[in-house]
Amino acid sequence: MSARSVGLPSRVPAPGLPERVTIWEVGARDGLQNESGVVDVGVKLEFLDRLADAGLGVLEATSFVHPKWVPQLADAEQLLAGLRRRDGVSYPVLVPNERGLDRALAAGVEHIAIFGSATETFAKRNLNRTLDEQFAMFEPVAGRARAEGLDVRGYVSMCFGDPWEGSVDPAQVVSVGKRLLDLGCSQLSLGDTIGVATPGQVEVLLAGFTEAGVDLGRIAVHFHDTYGQALSNTLASLRCGVSTVDSSAGGLGGCPYAESATGNLATEDLVWMLDGLGVQHGVDLAALAATSAWMAGQLGRPSPSRVVRALTG
Amino acid sequence: MSARSVGLPSRVPAPGLPERVTIWEVGARDGLQNESGVVDVGVKLEFLDRLADAGLGVLEATSFVHPKWVPQLADAEQLLAGLRRRDGVSYPVLVPNERGLDRALAAGVEHIAIFGSATETFAKRNLNRTLDEQFAMFEPVAGRARAEGLDVRGYVSMCFGDPWEGSVDPAQVVSVGKRLLDLGCSQLSLGDTIGVATPGQVEVLLAGFTEAGVDLGRIAVHFHDTYGQALSNTLASLRCGVSTVDSSAGGLGGCPYAESATGNLATEDLVWMLDGLGVQHGVDLAALAATSAWMAGQLGRPSPSRVVRALTG
Repeated sequence: MSARSVGLPSRVPAPGLPERVTIWEVGARDGLQNESGVVDVGVKLEFLDRLADAGLGVLEATSFVHPKWVPQLADAEQLLAGLRRRDGVSYPVLVPNERGLDRALAAGVEHIAIFGSATETFAKRNLNRTLDEQFAMFEPVAGRARAEGLDVRGYVSMCFGDPWEGSVDPAQVVSVGKRLLDLGCSQLSLGDTIGVATPGQVEVLLAGFTEAGVDLGRIAVHFHDTYGQALSNTLASLRCGVSTVDSSAGGLGGCPYAESATGNLATEDLVWMLDGLGVQHGVDLAALAATSAWMAGQLGRPSPSRVVRALTG
Repeated sequence: MSARSVGLPSRVPAPGLPERVTIWEVGARDGLQNESGVVDVGVKLEFLDRLADAGLGVLEATSFVHPKWVPQLADAEQLLAGLRRRDGVSYPVLVPNERGLDRALAAGVEHIAIFGSATETFAKRNLNRTLDEQFAMFEPVAGRARAEGLDVRGYVSMCFGDPWEGSVDPAQVVSVGKRLLDLGCSQLSLGDTIGVATPGQVEVLLAGFTEAGVDLGRIAVHFHDTYGQALSNTLASLRCGVSTVDSSAGGLGGCPYAESATGNLATEDLVWMLDGLGVQHGVDLAALAATSAWMAGQLGRPSPSRVVRALTG
């Protein structure tokens, strides 16, 4: 008798969790925008195709940030033109401003995401704007997008810590989040951009949104694994009632503003936990891990996802 | 203004956690026994010294398993003779059988750990014994150790999955654990040797021990990070009332019986979470991470701990 491959965890549900989680896959955008090299558009298209084959229903595809800032995604139009769209799969794109919205509309996009900072300092560093100027920029983007029938997601960066300001007041995050919802965002994604959060912080912030009257069904969480905390924070979020989780296939991604920031929560590590907990998600783990292993080969470095390495190493 | 180094998480306590956690540091034993090379005894002594300096109060130092099986720890006597013992620090050692106990007693050891399998197959593979034969071997070891005034810990391997048997019945684990307690073990360490567990499994197993009348104050958890689940499972354990957690500095270690098994939970990643949650542990994170970075240099490969890489990379 030889050791058999361990491909799936035992399924033992735990109380207090959502029945189903929506995985918002950000690998093609948040992942690849932080790679030092530029990936060929054909590889990106195959990546998105394989992610859809693996059962992911939301694939954040690219970004219309100016190519000067994110040359890795300068092929956004070409990518969207080549995309083999599937029924039931959504392909949101990041849009920073009206020029980006014009490009997204011209490319036939149906779902956009705008991204704001929770802190003044990061707004200044990332967008060269004050928070008020940030919202003045968002207002026509969200307004026109809604008028065109597009769905709009709002990202909030640096929700749990900021490399310049240090700790971030949850009340400040709730205030920024509410302003994004007031602009017409259907959903907020709360980002731990530098990966410093721990579960108590997560619970306090989510309680702050609940107290402010925001249904946690409209909240997604977006953790980076810089300090190895992403999955624990996700577990804490699920127990609070969150049911949308951002992650990136193979743990691709990072944050160029914090040099040590490693990738996003790996989708495979999340899927392993959800499979064990009996929470539905629709993803075929083996197909996903094979896709991430293939992508790691394209990038010429091993996947940071522990599940990918264990299943495909 | 430049980005400041993020050295510590914001402290935001969460309800339902122990006030203080004992970290049982296994890097020098479980970590180094799974390294492919043999580390010089002088390096090991410096490692243990620096771990004590960093505030760790339990340092599992070495193992008296036969050097044929674990050549990495063949220097156990030399190590213990050279150890600069500190007040308030415990240095348990692993003991497999009476011969190992003889060696431990001769070396002046005060605290031993015996290790059993939760499953018949792993007992056969690891000890070449049935479970009953395993306990027949333990009985005189634990009996003599207790008679000599030694403290005895009992490890249970493969509590959440076995590479040959697949899933493991929690009732079987509770039964094996109870037998170890009946032999005189003061504490049980429940090992996820192949790293497959998820939080629901952890909660069900701990509830099984509680139902069997075992105080969770006598239970430690020992997670491997093979599938990235170790810290989430630790969080779930703490919320059940466990207050002793095994981990290894820098995430050293693995399991030679499962080729993909990466290291133990990294002590630094655990400390980051505990610091954030306001749970006391007595460890200086910066000193610990610097020690692990130094040890990674000795081993010639990067630390698998995300915190170590973020703080020292």
